[in-house]
Amino acid sequence: MPHRGVSLQTEVRYYQQPQLENTVMICGLPGIGSVAWLAVNHLQKELHAELFAEVFSPMFSPKVWLGEDGVVGLMKGEFHFWKNKPGGPDLLLFTANEQPYSPEGQYELAEVTLDLANKFGARRVITMGGMATDRLSEEPKVYVGATGPDLVKELEAFGAVKLAGGAITGTNGLIFGLSKPKNIPAICLLAETPGYLSLDANAAKAALELSTRMLNISIDLSALEKQAKENADVVKKAKDLSHGFPRETKKGGDKELHYVS
Amino acid sequence: MPHRGVSLQTEVRYYQQPQLENTVMICGLPGIGSVAWLAVNHLQKELHAELFAEVFSPMFSPKVWLGEDGVVGLMKGEFHFWKNKPGGPDLLLFTANEQPYSPEGQYELAEVTLDLANKFGARRVITMGGMATDRLSEEPKVYVGATGPDLVKELEAFGAVKLAGGAITGTNGLIFGLSKPKNIPAICLLAETPGYLSLDANAAKAALELSTRMLNISIDLSALEKQAKENADVVKKAKDLSHGFPRETKKGGDKELHYVS
Amino acid sequence: MPHRGVSLQTEVRYYQQPQLENTVMICGLPGIGSVAWLAVNHLQKELHAELFAEVFSPMFSPKVWLGEDGVVGLMKGEFHFWKNKPGGPDLLLFTANEQPYSPEGQYELAEVTLDLANKFGARRVITMGGMATDRLSEEPKVYVGATGPDLVKELEAFGAVKLAGGAITGTNGLIFGLSKPKNIPAICLLAETPGYLSLDANAAKAALELSTRMLNISIDLSALEKQAKENADVVKKAKDLSHGFPRETKKGGDKELHYVS
Amino acid sequence: MPHRGVSLQTEVRYYQQPQLENTVMICGLPGIGSVAWLAVNHLQKELHAELFAEVFSPMFSPKVWLGEDGVVGLMKGEFHFWKNKPGGPDLLLFTANEQPYSPEGQYELAEVTLDLANKFGARRVITMGGMATDRLSEEPKVYVGATGPDLVKELEAFGAVKLAGGAITGTNGLIFGLSKPKNIPAICLLAETPGYLSLDANAAKAALELSTRMLNISIDLSALEKQAKENADVVKKAKDLSHGFPRETKKGGDKELHYVS
Repeated sequence: MPHRGVSLQTEVRYYQQPQLENTVMICGLPGIGSVAWLAVNHLQKELHAELFAEVFSPMFSPKVWLGEDGVVGLMKGEFHFWKNKPGGPDLLLFTANEQPYSPEGQYELAEVTLDLANKFGARRVITMGGMATDRLSEEPKVYVGATGPDLVKELEAFGAVKLAGGAITGTNGLIFGLSKPKNIPAICLLAETPGYLSLDANAAKAALELSTRMLNISIDLSALEKQAKENADVVKKAKDLSHGFPRETKKGGDKELHYVS
Repeated sequence: MPHRGVSLQTEVRYYQQPQLENTVMICGLPGIGSVAWLAVNHLQKELHAELFAEVFSPMFSPKVWLGEDGVVGLMKGEFHFWKNKPGGPDLLLFTANEQPYSPEGQYELAEVTLDLANKFGARRVITMGGMATDRLSEEPKVYVGATGPDLVKELEAFGAVKLAGGAITGTNGLIFGLSKPKNIPAICLLAETPGYLSLDANAAKAALELSTRMLNISIDLSALEKQAKENADVVKKAKDLSHGFPRETKKGGDKELHYVS
Repeated sequence: MPHRGVSLQTEVRYYQQPQLENTVMICGLPGIGSVAWLAVNHLQKELHAELFAEVFSPMFSPKVWLGEDGVVGLMKGEFHFWKNKPGGPDLLLFTANEQPYSPEGQYELAEVTLDLANKFGARRVITMGGMATDRLSEEPKVYVGATGPDLVKELEAFGAVKLAGGAITGTNGLIFGLSKPKNIPAICLLAETPGYLSLDANAAKAALELSTRMLNISIDLSALEKQAKENADVVKKAKDLSHGFPRETKKGGDKELHYVS
Repeated sequence: MPHRGVSLQTEVRYYQQPQLENTVMICGLPGIGSVAWLAVNHLQKELHAELFAEVFSPMFSPKVWLGEDGVVGLMKGEFHFWKNKPGGPDLLLFTANEQPYSPEGQYELAEVTLDLANKFGARRVITMGGMATDRLSEEPKVYVGATGPDLVKELEAFGAVKLAGGAITGTNGLIFGLSKPKNIPAICLLAETPGYLSLDANAAKAALELSTRMLNISIDLSALEKQAKENADVVKKAKDLSHGFPRETKKGGDKELHYVS
């Protein structure tokens, strides 16, 4: 009496079925500088968005984590929603504690996420990310790519810089790109971030400011600002220390930052 | 007349369908110090638990092994059961000769194992493992994580130490963590083990003592104790030898053990 | 209310269903010297072939690209068709911006492509590629393999050189080889290309000249010729420079080219 | 109108459906010293066994090969059959030009092969292989493992040496081992082979002699003997040469062979 199990598949668990209108999905998976992840987590907390679904998958790393209370948690993606005032867009927020480890897994998670976007009638998808540069900007530029030229122009009017060429890798890129054949208008916002920050709150703030201005949602950014200020102080201290031991600097003068290693 | 085969899948073969009550599943896959594997194998032998199902999977390594009699065996997982006296918990024991080699395979085996736990009405799942430290303790601590805070507290009352944070990797971790969305209360017991022992009987004994006390099952641990004593003698001898050739020791004094290489 | 998604699969999207007669499919995926890719792209432009289907797959790299206008594009394969004058063969052109990254993906893309070839009644499949040599030939030889000896002879009559032995790797090879069990006569044309050119327009021209002669299609090759001439000038300049710093040359005299590194 | 293709699967193509009686399957995939592959190819030629089925799979390498006539061939497995005189066993021969490159692929090919063995009522499966030793034996020992102790003893009576312990990796091992849960008696014969021979005809001959004696099939082994003799001459010459440049030899005296590098 053999039993042949079907191969384990990606699974979305719903805890409620929110009624959303004029839905915009904002995605923030971990990536360079954790820009997108920080931005969407901040939104989630400030808006008191509600968890309504989770996605589990054998495409995530084979591990679990324990909280301070000794209670186990799984590698997973989370979907939160936020009901806006009538007329304004309702939000669908997507985050995860990691990106799938395999290429197929990244495609699969992007597909599952967009299926959910479709199910809740998303009229726009926003993905974010960091664009590594070798300088720490106080006011990081935000680059934009989109599923159509009009959308690029719309974002340029909000202060974004057109990203003319290049590749966007990983799940954030795939969610963005796979929106196109599904006819969901999508934009990808990439905030400048120096390569050496693992949590760049300043870049997250820049991407979030632009997104919320476009969505006409007002949000308190002070927590991100505080974290950004702390980051800047740490970097300044490291810079001062490295000046104590003079090294060759790259051309570019005062603005140039030494890599902290 | 082409024949297209379905891809080979994980398969559970049942040899009998035991009637179990008040079922607790205890899982012991190979891992650091083989702690869990030793513990569950010991239980299996001492309780004369009966083999009733096996799991085969292309997720195991592509090899077979031969016994002393030249007879072939497959890479597989084994399920044994033990009927307790009325009132006490019946046991489901799960072991395997290796963990699946791929991440997806580890998720799949965890899922198959928990499906079987559900089928036999498991009301609790216990996974075990080793927690690498760099000292050889005569009385290794047993750390605990669980699917809920009450369960953590229950185990603390039996002498376990709450594991406040960290990640548990591999199939033992996944069986533990995936119990949560399936609503099976689960605990993970990690016994301290020095990294250099491949079969740490003393750690296995510590994990097993705590488990059986919790389950109110009495079991003879002398075989494990004997093996633990032999391990300790070998380690002591290695330590004495290394003292003959003095090396730098880490801070920590008499209790500190040199790594045996 | 869990939702288990089926694993993401390769997908062909049709934008129209052309009526083709006497169909020949010509495949040009990226590979050594981009010979096949250049040849099929040239055909596509010169014949004003129409895009009618695209293939998306999790077997491609997990990334997207942006055009100069900031608009996103996916990794994908494209199918164009061209209607010939009555009597002549209609063409099905297949290209992609990369080969799938995994072996299974390469098999899958080859299968999907040949399913489409069958659907449109292809009576012949032509794949192309580069054959790395260490010399830059002004008139590169074109080697041929086929699904049957008669086809090899037919191509020899058009000036191709029989490839007697050897292996052809990747998707171009699989599309060619898998035609055989599907009973579609197929040929593979490999044009000589030096290893150091990433876009060998001269080799592409050689493969295309032979193919179009066989298909009795006349096509303007001047754009490829122009690009080939530019390549040759760059290589000549590099050769002259390297002669300025004399190095040991391999036997073979004037015709021998130094590798440009 | 999207078209979602099913993922490419392993496929068996039948060219005829032979009526076999008292069937024994003999498997010879490439492996160490190509022992099994040589043995089954020899059987196939000497018995004029007929090709009746082929297995194609995306689990093989993504490549094709060309024959001397420029005609393409696929990576594949081949099934030949041979009808014995009434009473004697009919044979099913399985070979392939390579083993699948992935672990899952090796399991899949083993499964497909045993499904075919079952379909034709195989009452016994014989797999072969090489067992690497560091000496060249004129009369290589043949080791045996089996699905049961009686079968081990039966083969010992024919001169095989019981293999008491160890692991057998790859598809040859899996076909052997997976016979057990399918209740097909199976044996694995491993002939001694020095590690440095890629085609060890002498080992193949030893495995084949034992198999055919067991099956009561007489077969001309002179072609293998001739090839073995040529091998031995080459090795002797290399040995003589290496004696000209004296090197340290391992203990073991005259019989000891230097590794040829």
